[in-house]
Amino acid sequence: MNSANIRIVLVNPSHPGNIGGAARAMKNMGLRQLVLVAPRKFPHEEAEWRAASAVDLLEQAVVVESLAEAIADCQLVIGTSARGRRIPWPVLDPRRCAEEVQASVARDEQVALVFGREDSGLTNEELQTCNLHLHIPSHEDYPSLNLAMAVQVVSYELRMLALDGQLPQASTDEWDAPFSTMENMERFYQHLEQTLVQIEFLDPAAPRQLMARLRRLYGRVRLDEMELNILRGILTETQRAASAGRPEN
Amino acid sequence: MNSANIRIVLVNPSHPGNIGGAARAMKNMGLRQLVLVAPRKFPHEEAEWRAASAVDLLEQAVVVESLAEAIADCQLVIGTSARGRRIPWPVLDPRRCAEEVQASVARDEQVALVFGREDSGLTNEELQTCNLHLHIPSHEDYPSLNLAMAVQVVSYELRMLALDGQLPQASTDEWDAPFSTMENMERFYQHLEQTLVQIEFLDPAAPRQLMARLRRLYGRVRLDEMELNILRGILTETQRAASAGRPEN
Repeated sequence: MNSANIRIVLVNPSHPGNIGGAARAMKNMGLRQLVLVAPRKFPHEEAEWRAASAVDLLEQAVVVESLAEAIADCQLVIGTSARGRRIPWPVLDPRRCAEEVQASVARDEQVALVFGREDSGLTNEELQTCNLHLHIPSHEDYPSLNLAMAVQVVSYELRMLALDGQLPQASTDEWDAPFSTMENMERFYQHLEQTLVQIEFLDPAAPRQLMARLRRLYGRVRLDEMELNILRGILTETQRAASAGRPEN
Repeated sequence: MNSANIRIVLVNPSHPGNIGGAARAMKNMGLRQLVLVAPRKFPHEEAEWRAASAVDLLEQAVVVESLAEAIADCQLVIGTSARGRRIPWPVLDPRRCAEEVQASVARDEQVALVFGREDSGLTNEELQTCNLHLHIPSHEDYPSLNLAMAVQVVSYELRMLALDGQLPQASTDEWDAPFSTMENMERFYQHLEQTLVQIEFLDPAAPRQLMARLRRLYGRVRLDEMELNILRGILTETQRAASAGRPEN
């Protein structure tokens, strides 16, 4: 997804901290185009402080006087909205919004994601200039997200979609040792069983489910070769210590 | 998903604003259990200001001295991590993390999501007490998310999963008028065609693709009955005005 085609538009933000927070959230998620419609205080040191290493986005931010200017060259405009507008508009959650944005960017269109004022959001008139509305499905106990947080959520969904198929699929995809073969696992289980018999934890005459439980444990975790070597080393030393400790030795 | 089984643990947060921001993000997404491990400044007015209508979460927050205390009664502990730990650990993105949390909560287990310090994250020792690691797939240009933003993203994914199947599937699921039947659409197209002929925009002898284009337009948008009535009203008035404007009248 070409992020150069995606702009985040903040309409009349009151708190410079939110502008900075939005800039950081954008850069964290690979977005760079910030447009500010008549911000109350900008530039401002609070914005820079919250932006942290995203001050470059603040320096490159475009400041305009009206939403119309901010979106004039866009082919797709999506406005964030609370629920319950008088006239329902096509509304998407952030995940489905990301899909629309991706499709539009794939056609090399310019896309604007528009966020309203901290206290009152976008006006009905502003929302009516949008092709689609975006609603973050917040909890009814406290539905109103902080402005920069809303930018974070929407930018995150764009990033997740851009990375689709590139993220590790299994939690152990990035590992530092090969996982053990079944042959090596069998040798380990035999070694483990011998050792447990030797230290008299396992009675061969009444083994119950002990080895099955241990097989489930180590099978479930999928040991890597290094871990297997550590465990076999422990078993070897356990056997040696047990032999040494025997009265007859 | 029973949110009472899920706690957000912040380890040594430095900035009270982040504690407040995290509390707000949690309440926005339906979470309520905040645990603070040795926060530098808490309680603090900056935390309350940023929490806004989530001050109740700050008031109910549990403050402890160590991570061990914070997670003592948990069956699943997931720690947030930047990439590139010396020993790889099973690592999930926020979406797959939410699935693990949901499965654990479904077994009525206690789950902790642990977030580290603003400047240095969790220590290796702390990460090694976690069952799983969570990594937010940020952009390489600026990978470090603000603490409260990270809480927002993770809480958002839990909320999205909790709402799975309950969110509107189509952007027009919540609409204020029934969509038109094909029969009414055909009457509209006939009315439209008559009108276009009458105002001499459409030449019946050389219609080209005009009606096909208009059918595609209105078919694509799926008109509702109220919109159809408005458009037919416009056509009727157009026909009347065109008749009145004719020289022979």
